[in-house]
Amino acid sequence: MTTTTIDIALIKDYFLGLQNRITSALSELDGKAFIVDEWQKPPDSKLRGSGRTCILENGNVLEKGGVGFSHVHGDQMPGAASQNRPEVAGRGFEAMGVSLVFHPHNPKAPTTHMNVRCFIAQAPNQEPIWWFGGGFDLTPYYGYDEDCRHFHQTAKDALDPFGADLHHRFKQWCDDYFYLKHREEPRGIGGIFFDDFNELGFDKSFAMMRAVGDAFINAYLPILQRRYQEPYTPEEKDFQEYRRGRYVEYNLIFDRGTIFGLQSGGRSESILMSLPPIVKWRYNWHPTPNTPEAKLYDYYLQPRNWLA
Amino acid sequence: MTTTTIDIALIKDYFLGLQNRITSALSELDGKAFIVDEWQKPPDSKLRGSGRTCILENGNVLEKGGVGFSHVHGDQMPGAASQNRPEVAGRGFEAMGVSLVFHPHNPKAPTTHMNVRCFIAQAPNQEPIWWFGGGFDLTPYYGYDEDCRHFHQTAKDALDPFGADLHHRFKQWCDDYFYLKHREEPRGIGGIFFDDFNELGFDKSFAMMRAVGDAFINAYLPILQRRYQEPYTPEEKDFQEYRRGRYVEYNLIFDRGTIFGLQSGGRSESILMSLPPIVKWRYNWHPTPNTPEAKLYDYYLQPRNWLA
Repeated sequence: MTTTTIDIALIKDYFLGLQNRITSALSELDGKAFIVDEWQKPPDSKLRGSGRTCILENGNVLEKGGVGFSHVHGDQMPGAASQNRPEVAGRGFEAMGVSLVFHPHNPKAPTTHMNVRCFIAQAPNQEPIWWFGGGFDLTPYYGYDEDCRHFHQTAKDALDPFGADLHHRFKQWCDDYFYLKHREEPRGIGGIFFDDFNELGFDKSFAMMRAVGDAFINAYLPILQRRYQEPYTPEEKDFQEYRRGRYVEYNLIFDRGTIFGLQSGGRSESILMSLPPIVKWRYNWHPTPNTPEAKLYDYYLQPRNWLA
Repeated sequence: MTTTTIDIALIKDYFLGLQNRITSALSELDGKAFIVDEWQKPPDSKLRGSGRTCILENGNVLEKGGVGFSHVHGDQMPGAASQNRPEVAGRGFEAMGVSLVFHPHNPKAPTTHMNVRCFIAQAPNQEPIWWFGGGFDLTPYYGYDEDCRHFHQTAKDALDPFGADLHHRFKQWCDDYFYLKHREEPRGIGGIFFDDFNELGFDKSFAMMRAVGDAFINAYLPILQRRYQEPYTPEEKDFQEYRRGRYVEYNLIFDRGTIFGLQSGGRSESILMSLPPIVKWRYNWHPTPNTPEAKLYDYYLQPRNWLA
């Protein structure tokens, strides 16, 4: 029996290259460089591995931005990763990916998140189990229709060559996944999300994931360029800091990547670099009707087809 | 067969009375009154019930303080509440309690948390299943030995009449429970914590829980009185805001009450009123050695017997 060999080095090259392209593009706009933090888990860790965390704090455009690459491996799949795939429980595995969050200073510029990743669970003389996951999504504080349309159109253009139904499915998946059940509120205006993806075979599935990763800069950078110099008031900044609380709630209560990472002994500082720099919580606050803040809730945070 | 009847009204009177005594004592020191928010879940909610949330924001002493009473009931115990008690799964239940968190402005004054609660799962013609839980704990930003000793001594004095081993057990339980695994860090200097407690029979178990609730003001108020006017620098305030991030991480990732409440359809705003008013996250920050900030980590955030 011949088993497939997965070229781990090739996947890793892609992820590190993507990380480099994204940090370069953001640094160029910001005028401040990312700090690069290479890390290695000690050999006796529950989860072994290494990574490269790129972080920019107190930039000119970004209040905080982090782009992390990590490559971890372990002897047993943890619960959060194998819940949809009981056949991999107990197998050795490796997980690799790039994950980023950008929190701009300007409340008129949206926060964004992107992730591309793969899981590979190999066993001697057996076909490897593998899948890809990823996506990107946008979380505005003040919405702009043209930004929403541009973001979703870029996602659709990246996916269409791989299957006519993919964008529709992954857009819906994103709306379902980035949802704060306890608030009955979407995290933002969505984007695309996919996981456990292997239906096109290895080469085409990998190519699809790369198309998503490659599309991210085109999806986000034009929006950031349009908005980072918009005038804003202290009250608008305050609203942004309040709304960032939802981001924290989502990441710590619901986000599978965060929970998987913390459960499995991942590097906490790299996992939690997604958390915003300054966040406010107020009791039972609601926006005044007919304000731009109310429009965020009533219009932008309502799942819709932005390309209709 | 005669079954025991639990006097729900009596327990409720205690909880509402305790809430009132605590908010009165804190208001008197602060000079600002709590806002009282009575709420009722709609009759078609997954979890029915009502409560009284008392909140003080932007006070003179408290930056944010919340004292919540809630009384919820449902037809089926949710997972987070029945994991240690499989025999109650599926039974109708009610849960009642008071929970509070105080976040003072002054970084020299500690944050504190207190909770007293009971769960009662009744079924026709069967002995009710019931237990009490609760405790209080202290989270300083800048430590003071005398405050730590006073807080723990007050807890011990409250428990000793009910059993010589209780304080030792509940102090250890608190250290184990309020622990951030992903940081390998205790949340604060501890206190007491107990759950699933019924070993003294109903009357004495209820009395023990009341002793804990009643001791809270004596445990915390003298510390707050001593510290709320201490001078502090902007850097010390910044350190407090950074450390509050640990509080958020604990409550959203680990706290059983928070997770139970959000899972079971509790009132999100009342559950999340424990979150601090302003919080900061920074990447991979560590205090400079031999500073008061380093002493928090090296000395205060190390489980120890403060009464030795």
